[in-house]
Amino acid sequence: MATTNGIHKSPALRHQPTFSSENIPSSEYQERIARIRDSIQAAGLAGLISFGDCWRGANVCYFTEFRPLDGVSDIANAIFFVGADTEPVLFVSKQCAAYASEVTTFNVCTFDEMQDGLQDFSKGRSGTLALAGEAYIPQNLYQRITAALGNMKLEPHPVLAEMKAIKTEREIALIRKASYLTDQAMEAIKETLADGQPHTERELALLADQRMLAGGAERTAYDSMVQSGPRSAFNLARPTDRVVQAGDLVMTDIGARYRGYCADGGRGFIYRSESAEQEKKDIVKAAAEAVEAGLNHGRPGMTASELNGFMQKALVKSGFEQYSSEARGHGTGHGTGMDPEEEAPWIGPGNKTVLKENMVFTLKATITVPGIGGLRTERIVRVTSSGLEALDVYPMELYW
Amino acid sequence: MATTNGIHKSPALRHQPTFSSENIPSSEYQERIARIRDSIQAAGLAGLISFGDCWRGANVCYFTEFRPLDGVSDIANAIFFVGADTEPVLFVSKQCAAYASEVTTFNVCTFDEMQDGLQDFSKGRSGTLALAGEAYIPQNLYQRITAALGNMKLEPHPVLAEMKAIKTEREIALIRKASYLTDQAMEAIKETLADGQPHTERELALLADQRMLAGGAERTAYDSMVQSGPRSAFNLARPTDRVVQAGDLVMTDIGARYRGYCADGGRGFIYRSESAEQEKKDIVKAAAEAVEAGLNHGRPGMTASELNGFMQKALVKSGFEQYSSEARGHGTGHGTGMDPEEEAPWIGPGNKTVLKENMVFTLKATITVPGIGGLRTERIVRVTSSGLEALDVYPMELYW
Repeated sequence: MATTNGIHKSPALRHQPTFSSENIPSSEYQERIARIRDSIQAAGLAGLISFGDCWRGANVCYFTEFRPLDGVSDIANAIFFVGADTEPVLFVSKQCAAYASEVTTFNVCTFDEMQDGLQDFSKGRSGTLALAGEAYIPQNLYQRITAALGNMKLEPHPVLAEMKAIKTEREIALIRKASYLTDQAMEAIKETLADGQPHTERELALLADQRMLAGGAERTAYDSMVQSGPRSAFNLARPTDRVVQAGDLVMTDIGARYRGYCADGGRGFIYRSESAEQEKKDIVKAAAEAVEAGLNHGRPGMTASELNGFMQKALVKSGFEQYSSEARGHGTGHGTGMDPEEEAPWIGPGNKTVLKENMVFTLKATITVPGIGGLRTERIVRVTSSGLEALDVYPMELYW
Repeated sequence: MATTNGIHKSPALRHQPTFSSENIPSSEYQERIARIRDSIQAAGLAGLISFGDCWRGANVCYFTEFRPLDGVSDIANAIFFVGADTEPVLFVSKQCAAYASEVTTFNVCTFDEMQDGLQDFSKGRSGTLALAGEAYIPQNLYQRITAALGNMKLEPHPVLAEMKAIKTEREIALIRKASYLTDQAMEAIKETLADGQPHTERELALLADQRMLAGGAERTAYDSMVQSGPRSAFNLARPTDRVVQAGDLVMTDIGARYRGYCADGGRGFIYRSESAEQEKKDIVKAAAEAVEAGLNHGRPGMTASELNGFMQKALVKSGFEQYSSEARGHGTGHGTGMDPEEEAPWIGPGNKTVLKENMVFTLKATITVPGIGGLRTERIVRVTSSGLEALDVYPMELYW
């Protein structure tokens, strides 16, 4: 068998299954591989080890249609490995290898072969390999990798994150579609509540999920959150059997995944606002205005820190500073794409990353007042040639 | 603030949201905590550190209604920690803490507090802490834990796995419900194909998901698999836009999650079998007979190895030995419950674990013949006082 970078080429089991023209084509995967190798060389790195799992697949799925499957073993894991001067290889579990070979444009090997392969690569080499996915790579797998690297170093490095941050037209179209499906889910919640019957958080989340699937979503991007009344003050929570009450502020955080691309949406609403205290309306308005400030002022050439500044300032001025993590400098947005949350660009204080055309990220404002309620208003935006364009269209001030 | 085991008690933010009587009640969580502490003491362990994440939550969700949320940071993680002689504590991210406190019957602290808390616990102690969730705990979190343990050791240990293996009545009812919803999903696929129109793998998976949600599933237990024709020979794969053809063998692996409990089902079928080669029918029959052998012969008091033997033997006799990993000794089943795959009992050669009443696990037979097709026939079973009871009812030999 021919070997490249010390790793045996797996037998060709490759054929192209019927696919939609919306999917990322082989040529785009190949371009990404060529570009990451250029970036690795430019950064003086020896290579890239990139981890993805079934639910946080971006760092692998960026290079292949393959996504690992659910599980507690290596079936849920994958490693994309490319040397500065070698061909890429995808490491997957044995049970996934045949499928991975079907949908991957480069070599697929199994995890059983990984340590030998990495050992062969690292023989006589020093230098540093970039690690992507360091926040969630399992220690079990991480140990196997580092044990095989000899004198080479493995360090977190943003080389892949920076590349993923700038989207192609096709990617933007897929995110726009996922956003559209997410907007539809909000509409489904609105329509349901309009009947005036009692509805629980759990039921509304289910209806949202059903609407996204009915529209063609492959699944939710993440488990839908619907939190009503005092529960809307929880930053993150799961739906319960609580019935949404008149006058409630309701936090929702719902998103679709469409052909691998996510929408990380967020909208709050007041249900039967004639019964709601003024403070709740102030909360809704303040969050919307903060996000508007970002939408209106953001432009290419600005730093992420500057963009954050517009939104952080708006939140501070709103009077809700102590109830908003964004107001206190925790960041007003994050990269998004194949995973709901991606590493770059982080929209937050001190981040000197310059915003470039076709970066896609979220803009968000969370306000949570214990005992009253809260919301997270989150938009998905694209940097245009002159400003920011929202990829989702749903309004932000919602009184149902 | 009162401290126990060195970890500060978080302020009480606890109230009981409205819940269905199907849910695991506080009293059952409290019983589990008491029993795990007894088991820890009996095993001579100093305590238990149990990791769960958003998707593989069982090792935490066993003790609390809290399940982490999707994400790439600690929001997706949780640690349940209990000492042999101390009160339990749940470590979660700051953003999840308020929600966790709402639904957890014991102390909740944040990950920011974890290292100090573990350090205080381990001061002047030696001994070993059991680790649950070792296969998938992130290295980032694992390092933070071990760095804080001083002279104490942290080692994988089955103390929790053994307890989870035996289900209560309420748990069995939830698994039965999840299995029922899964059976309904198979029926949805059958009904759809009966119209004689072209249907893709992706479409059938979507319909299955929609049926499970419509029946009340909180979500799928895992991403649904539908693989038709030659793709049915992939052990694990994702659905594509391939249209199911007359004569195809189709592998499906679909399961619902209902109020935290999963059904890890699996059925293959032949579509318009009048067009199918005899070998495909032989494959369906052989897998069904192997699972039947397990269902008919399994009983309490038998070892997992003995039960495996019945199924492994049937597969060897079928003539498909070289096409079946179970026939070659890779195991014919696994524990199941809150996660689709749980650690105990593993049904496989050499496992001397004695089967006890109310253990719940899967029985499975996978046969994949490259170029022809394959399937995984997987049932969910409960050990009764005298044998095995299947919790799912859907037939195994399906000719549609």
